[in-house]
Formats: sequence, structure tokens, C-alpha cells
Amino acid sequence: MLIGNQSWLFQNKPVIISTGVTGGPFEREGRLADDFDVLHEDLWMGEDSYEKAHRLLIEEAIQVALEKGSIQKNQIQFMILGDLINQITPSSFAARTIGIPYFGIFGACSTSMEGLALAAFILDKGGANNIVTGAASHNATAERQFRYPTEYGGQKPPTAQWTVTGAGFAIVSKQNNSNQNEPKVTTATIGKVVDMGLSDPFNMGGAMAPAAVDTIAAHFKDTGRDPSYYDLIVTGDLGKIGRATALDLFHQQGLNIMEDKFQDCGLMIYKEDQPIQAGASGPASSATVIYGHLIKQLKQGKYKKILCVATGALLSPMTVQQKESIPCIAHAVSIEI
Amino acid sequence: MLIGNQSWLFQNKPVIISTGVTGGPFEREGRLADDFDVLHEDLWMGEDSYEKAHRLLIEEAIQVALEKGSIQKNQIQFMILGDLINQITPSSFAARTIGIPYFGIFGACSTSMEGLALAAFILDKGGANNIVTGAASHNATAERQFRYPTEYGGQKPPTAQWTVTGAGFAIVSKQNNSNQNEPKVTTATIGKVVDMGLSDPFNMGGAMAPAAVDTIAAHFKDTGRDPSYYDLIVTGDLGKIGRATALDLFHQQGLNIMEDKFQDCGLMIYKEDQPIQAGASGPASSATVIYGHLIKQLKQGKYKKILCVATGALLSPMTVQQKESIPCIAHAVSIEI
Repeated sequence: MLIGNQSWLFQNKPVIISTGVTGGPFEREGRLADDFDVLHEDLWMGEDSYEKAHRLLIEEAIQVALEKGSIQKNQIQFMILGDLINQITPSSFAARTIGIPYFGIFGACSTSMEGLALAAFILDKGGANNIVTGAASHNATAERQFRYPTEYGGQKPPTAQWTVTGAGFAIVSKQNNSNQNEPKVTTATIGKVVDMGLSDPFNMGGAMAPAAVDTIAAHFKDTGRDPSYYDLIVTGDLGKIGRATALDLFHQQGLNIMEDKFQDCGLMIYKEDQPIQAGASGPASSATVIYGHLIKQLKQGKYKKILCVATGALLSPMTVQQKESIPCIAHAVSIEI
Repeated sequence: MLIGNQSWLFQNKPVIISTGVTGGPFEREGRLADDFDVLHEDLWMGEDSYEKAHRLLIEEAIQVALEKGSIQKNQIQFMILGDLINQITPSSFAARTIGIPYFGIFGACSTSMEGLALAAFILDKGGANNIVTGAASHNATAERQFRYPTEYGGQKPPTAQWTVTGAGFAIVSKQNNSNQNEPKVTTATIGKVVDMGLSDPFNMGGAMAPAAVDTIAAHFKDTGRDPSYYDLIVTGDLGKIGRATALDLFHQQGLNIMEDKFQDCGLMIYKEDQPIQAGASGPASSATVIYGHLIKQLKQGKYKKILCVATGALLSPMTVQQKESIPCIAHAVSIEI
């Protein structure tokens, strides 16, 4: 049901019954390598294009989630997913392989939580028994499309971020048939587009921070909760600069969010000595960290209540060339155990 | 609620309280010109890029729908929309202008009914009071991105289709407060990706026909209805070739759909003497014809029950270059008065 202006409360609390998380060679060297189900040794993954490797990451993540959830494809009514590539073809081609009725979505790096919010709403209200949802990105496809082919060796400023190669998917279910100790989706807040006039595509974290803060503030207003309700508030890919900006904005707005309870997936996934500049980015940043690392931590009892805020920069190479500023968005979903 | 494997029955029958439909110079010369609210005299529309004109079409369509519905932006909880352009930037930039919480979706030319299905489900279940949803395309932005800039003057085979310049939007409401004689959204069927191995991007109607037939067959199976239930079954942009293929497939599958009750938006919007080859296409094909022409015909009593089947070809220029076949999808929504 609608609460406040832009949030949903899920009365039947849909359950994340299983997840599947895949990654590439850079993630294999990262801090959260143990939280991935499949890690490839190279960016090609046995395919003859990076785009096909991108599609493979999605197919494998869904396949793993199906196996871990002991569920058949024909028990799942819908799939809701997206990615960064033009016309989200890796997602649509994976949907062709999987064969489940398909909603394509686009929210750039906010896609993971746009999908989980929609999936949870549909399940909460009996529109499906099971839905598979998630998001993916591939470093080499994103570099080629948004910047230059990696072979070009273009340099980047320290504010730039590193696109995660990976896919994170969850099977979300109307009800929990087996184990009571499963993560439940309890609320969602859908973001507005926020644009503070920043136009540097090499500082997307800074551009996205106001959108994250806008959605987090709306979440507390709509739900009547305050920051102390959560053990962790985690953003998708603000990186170092965006996270610092968001903390400043919380302070300015009188939102009392403690620094150690406010983390960013883009600062969790890699080790400090990996050359990722300001942090990780891409739809797979939040999708792999939330569905891999954080769901595991919820199950292990480290957290009981987390708010996952996936952030997206809704630009394209053409809008940058046309001197537009960067519209940003964030969607928040709370997961509790 | 879920009925069958891939359909929803909307028990509270969300109402289309108003629509806004905009178009360009080619649509101004077309057969349905009287059903557009705003028609521009040139493709630039006073903007300095075609992409900005594309965004303007969306903003104007939503503005008209708000005015005709006598509804304020702050009474609308969500907007659900998409388009064909990379990273759906015309939609995201319009969402920045309008300022309503935003779900970006991508289903190529099936976007209009993907959005209406989601909007109707959310409204039916109390997830919002009002939602604005729709889709748009612009001939010159699509030509530049998918083929060549129009200035290049490239020739096309007779199987090619003409991208509609326009935007079609609807404000859909949880309940009908005023007039009982408003179109209601009663069911939706979400399509699977269907790919019969066709790979010619200049014959997308032929590629999309099997997806349309798959979704229509699933709709009848899930709802227990048969073709005689509807006064009209209308596809989005199959064009001449796709429509003929679909009729053949109906016959093969024993689906008794009469030829005069099976129409295609892509064959309705332009006059016979306009040089559109096999018909119109683009997300605006179904969006402008359904929200402009057909909603008017429902209100005028010409039809009582229609099934709107928006069809999408989920390709990109890169997938064509990489010699992939064309995955296609169709989503069906029934509208009754």
C-alpha cells in the first residue's frame, strides 16, 4: 500500500528466497570475492564479444539463483531486469534464453532497487508467486560505450569510478514456505529525478549524492521511521566523493545518520590497492554487493534491518556531448530479517 | 491478481481519466491528425537538437493530459515511461522537468503497454492514486541512432517502417470520481521474448509477428476469453508484412480472429499516399493511436472492448552488427468502457 507520497509498505513481506551473483577477474581480486557464486578469470568468459559475456553473467546469475532456491523456471511468473548497454540488449537477450515473461527496466545504476521495488509490490499484492529480478554491468562494454574501448588506454581523473563486471539477481517470493530466517522486503521509496546542474561524467558520485539524500529523506518522511531504525543504510555507487557529499547534505538537512552506519557498495567491493579511483559503479555495484554480501550478512545476523539505496546517473554519451547536466535518481528498498 | 501463467485481472478496474498526444509534421499530414492534441510543424519544434524536441513531445503530452484531467502534478504519485533512445534520456530528462517519482522502462515499441500494465496493477492494488504512463519516439533521433542521419538520404527496402514522431500519455486513476463513461483497464498479459531467428532490421514487423501471436494466445488461455470477446484487437506496429504473418499464424494455431477485427496502429496513423513503406513503427505508434484515436472511439461508442497489443523489437545497432537475430516481445492490455 501507498504510504506518504512516494513509498510502499509491503504488508505480506515478500521473501528473498535465493540469490545468484556472478563477477569477472577484477571482482575475483576484490574484497568480497567470497560472496560471489561464479567468478570468471577473464572479461571474455569464453564468448566472442564483451556484450555476449555481459549476457552470460546475467544468465548464470539467474541459473544459480534458481538452483539455490530449488525452484523451476515455470514456477516464476515474471523477470524484471535491466543494464546500461544501449537498448538493454544483454538483459533482453538473457530474457530470450530464460524464457520467463519479461519487464525491461532502465534506471542506470539504480536498476537493482527499481526492479526489487516493483517485484516486491507485485508479489505483495498477489500478482505473482515468484519473480526474478536484478541488474548487471560489464566493465569493457560500459567503457566502450560511455568512454573509449579499454584498449585505447584513456586516462581518467581521480573522481572517476570503475564499472563493476557482474550480475546480481534474487528470486523473490510471495511467501516463505520453508525457513523463517529469510530476508524480507518491507518497504520501498521511489525516487524523483534530481539534477543539481553538475555535468562532469567523471564525477558521477558527486552528481548522484543529492538524489540519494532526497530519496532517503523522503523514505523517513513517508514511513515515519528515523535513521536509528536501520543497522545500515547503504548506497549503490556514490564512491568516496559522493559519499562525503551525501554526509554533508544529511548534516545540512538535520538528518542524523551516523557515519559508520552509512556505507556505499562502491567502496565495499574492491580492495584499497585496486586502481578504482573514487570507487566502483555500474548497476552491478549495488546488485552484487546487496544480493551477494549483504544478504549473507543479514542471514548471519550481522544486520537485522538495512536500507538499500541504489543510485543512478541518467545520462548518455549524447547528452554529455550536447552539454546537458546529469539527471540522477535513487530508489530505496528496506530488507529485514 | 494473477490469472493463468502471465496475466493480471484488475478487479477494481483502473480508469484512464485523460490522455495527451503530441506529434510532428508527418503526423499532421496523417489520417489521424484530428486525434492529436498538439501537432508541430517541423521536426525541431523550436529546440536546438532532435533529442530535445523528443523530450519536448513527452513534456507537452503529459502537460496536456494533466490539463484535460484537471489534475495537479502533486496528486500523481508515479510516472512510468520510456523511449528508444540510448539510456532513454528523453524520458529521464522529461521526468526531471515534471518532477514526479519515476520508473524508467524499456520495451522498445512495446513500452506503451508495459507501462500501462504496471500502472494498472499498482493502481488496482492501492499502490498509488494516480499514475501517468506512456511512450514516445522521434523519427529523426531514431533514424540517426538506428540507421543513418536523415540528411544522409539512405534508401530503404519496402519492408522497412517509418518511426512515428510523437508521444502518447495517459493519466490512470484508482477510481472514477466523475464520469462513469470512462475507459477502464481490465486485464494485462505480459509477454515472453520470442525470437524466430529473423535478423533483418528492415523487416521488424515480420520479426515481431510471432511475439504478438504468442502473447495474444497466452491472453486467451489465461483469461478464458476468446477472440469474440473483443470488438477490436490492435497491434502496435507490425505493419503490412507483420500483420499478414500474424493472420497466417492465427490460422495455423486455430485462433479464430476475423481479419476486420484485427488492426495495426502502424497501418492506421498515416494516409496511403505517405511514403511510409510497410507502415509506421516506434513506441509512439501504439502510444499515439491508442491514447489518441482509440480512446476517443471507445468514448464515442464505436468500440466497447479492445485488446491493445504493443509489439517491440529488442535489438540494437550493435546486436545487428554482431549478427544476432532479433528478439521480440509483445504486451497486451484490455481496455473496456
